Amino acid sequence: MKTRAAVAWRAGAPLSIETVDLEGPRAGEVLVEVKATGICHTDQFTLSGADPEGLFPAILGHEGAGVVLEVGPGVTSVRPDDHVIPLYTPECRECKFCLSRKTNLCQRIRSTQGRGLMPDGTSRFSIDGKPILHYMGTSTFANHIVVPEIALAKVRADAPFDTVCYIGCGVTTGVGAVLFTAKVEAGANVAVFGLGGIGLNVVQGARLVGADKIIGVDLNPEREAMARQFGITHFVNPRDTPNVVDTIVQLTDGGVDFSFECIGNTSVMRQALECTHKGWGRSIIIGVAPAGAEISTRPFQLVTGRKWEGSAFGGARGRTDVPKIVDWYMDRKIRIDELITHRLPLEDINRGFELMEKGESIRSVVIY
Amino acid sequence: MKTRAAVAWRAGAPLSIETVDLEGPRAGEVLVEVKATGICHTDQFTLSGADPEGLFPAILGHEGAGVVLEVGPGVTSVRPDDHVIPLYTPECRECKFCLSRKTNLCQRIRSTQGRGLMPDGTSRFSIDGKPILHYMGTSTFANHIVVPEIALAKVRADAPFDTVCYIGCGVTTGVGAVLFTAKVEAGANVAVFGLGGIGLNVVQGARLVGADKIIGVDLNPEREAMARQFGITHFVNPRDTPNVVDTIVQLTDGGVDFSFECIGNTSVMRQALECTHKGWGRSIIIGVAPAGAEISTRPFQLVTGRKWEGSAFGGARGRTDVPKIVDWYMDRKIRIDELITHRLPLEDINRGFELMEKGESIRSVVIY
Repeated sequence: MKTRAAVAWRAGAPLSIETVDLEGPRAGEVLVEVKATGICHTDQFTLSGADPEGLFPAILGHEGAGVVLEVGPGVTSVRPDDHVIPLYTPECRECKFCLSRKTNLCQRIRSTQGRGLMPDGTSRFSIDGKPILHYMGTSTFANHIVVPEIALAKVRADAPFDTVCYIGCGVTTGVGAVLFTAKVEAGANVAVFGLGGIGLNVVQGARLVGADKIIGVDLNPEREAMARQFGITHFVNPRDTPNVVDTIVQLTDGGVDFSFECIGNTSVMRQALECTHKGWGRSIIIGVAPAGAEISTRPFQLVTGRKWEGSAFGGARGRTDVPKIVDWYMDRKIRIDELITHRLPLEDINRGFELMEKGESIRSVVIY
Repeated sequence: MKTRAAVAWRAGAPLSIETVDLEGPRAGEVLVEVKATGICHTDQFTLSGADPEGLFPAILGHEGAGVVLEVGPGVTSVRPDDHVIPLYTPECRECKFCLSRKTNLCQRIRSTQGRGLMPDGTSRFSIDGKPILHYMGTSTFANHIVVPEIALAKVRADAPFDTVCYIGCGVTTGVGAVLFTAKVEAGANVAVFGLGGIGLNVVQGARLVGADKIIGVDLNPEREAMARQFGITHFVNPRDTPNVVDTIVQLTDGGVDFSFECIGNTSVMRQALECTHKGWGRSIIIGVAPAGAEISTRPFQLVTGRKWEGSAFGGARGRTDVPKIVDWYMDRKIRIDELITHRLPLEDINRGFELMEKGESIRSVVIY
């Protein structure tokens, strides 16, 4: 079949809207009509050329929601008309990682996904017979996609596509880091570094689980107002204090119980670790650092009881946990509507990237 | 009263055997006759002058065992003739740290202990009326000491002093890091970097809890034989392999579940982290790095599920856990006898330091 897609022909160039050939689903695969997709910093990271693993030409996008149109042989967990969120972190429930009970990082299709291919080693997208690569196993910048069954979370049909698509990445990454990775407990003190799309979701995750102090840290004073709506109890602007670590330690009688780095800045990652409480502080890295950048600290920080950790896709198991997060949104336990600041047709997708780069949007969503 | 002690008059000088005045116990304090004390790298670190927090003149030593002679007013948990192990990490069971259930790092007397003083801000040791400082709240290089009640673990009376003194530091630090900090589970794969006094105790802790592969890493091939007796299943000499991380990853189908750094070398700390398994590997730093040294890695290591942690005094709560470890030794669940390679009178204590520096001893013990 034919579909429309924003194609990334090469690093650094704007996306180009094209009519693309899409092959139907093979065994274990599913054809999905994407109804909406967010535009995320990770798409920008790859499109810019900064991602050392970026491949071109490809169809980017990894934060979508849509409807199943057709299933390939052997598919049992979804059927046509099901509403689904594509998962860049799949959940096969059979690999060493899924069975470990210790991680959400299913590795079942990791190697082909990393090469922009379906699990059988081929692409379903092409133009004039030349293959176009998939991206993160999702490629939600195409109106129709083929994805493995294990990379689809089935979600309730009354959830609106143009907001729950954000659960495909940003919401789950932030809320999940609190609930699934850190397992923050009620009464804990929390610091959140970076109050953008991820940080605000960490903040509302911390509020959801009953955190006590929720300290938001951002250089941009305009971020404070919305962050307070989402749950911060204190705002710290590093420009206004000689030492952000000391400030947080003083605010919390010794340091926060949990901190989250939502920027991708390795200096901030160190601050995030060092502002946690001696004896039990845990610092969770969420942000993606530039290629080659390294984190450092004195080992004494760890020997005296702090732990340095990370979170990918919020520690969420996609098929198991994403439907729950959709429920929480529909039950108004978490908020998404306010975070979707812009809605665009596919033709204006490059404008969505511009808004993100300028910091004018929290999330722009393309509506097909 | 008078007692004999090895006094550290200044950094870099040998210890000097002196007759020292010792004041009796005040409220909450206990007079202990030290029967035996190990000589540990931490004593050497301070004596050398490399420890930025080292103070002089002081009576070093922190790995002792002895008998209660007299208790001060208000002491209820020990009485004369009790056998005890002094605790450089006390356990008050009342401070924020003890009550957190998340750490063993009781802070009740931390500030005075760090200044070489008893909790009331004075020293019990003097010579010619001039105070001599305590060290780590224990000063087991004196034949008699006064320590706070909360810094004494009461242990069974049939345990020999000249071996269980080692539980006052090295044994607990190693075995405890496995049991209390990491909580290694049966069937886990473990790597231990450094097969000295701490590393061998990590090894036997891993064996105690039923670890599967226990990979010992050391530059000294002579360490392999005893390490095998203590439980290693594989020995890796970094001199014999181009890349110790890759070697360990290959031995374990993706990396170890837990690694322990028992040296204090920040480059090795990085290797220890990076040889753990994607998704759930945990690396525990035990070794004390040189002042100012820093650890580094790419944050990607953490975002993909590895955790970087530390352990002090094996995560053990001294009064609660040290008596259990004495029981395990008496029940032959763990071995100490083979690790005590030298026994010396107090007069020969400097020889014990020499043996340690030359790597000729695992543990030298001074018998009073």
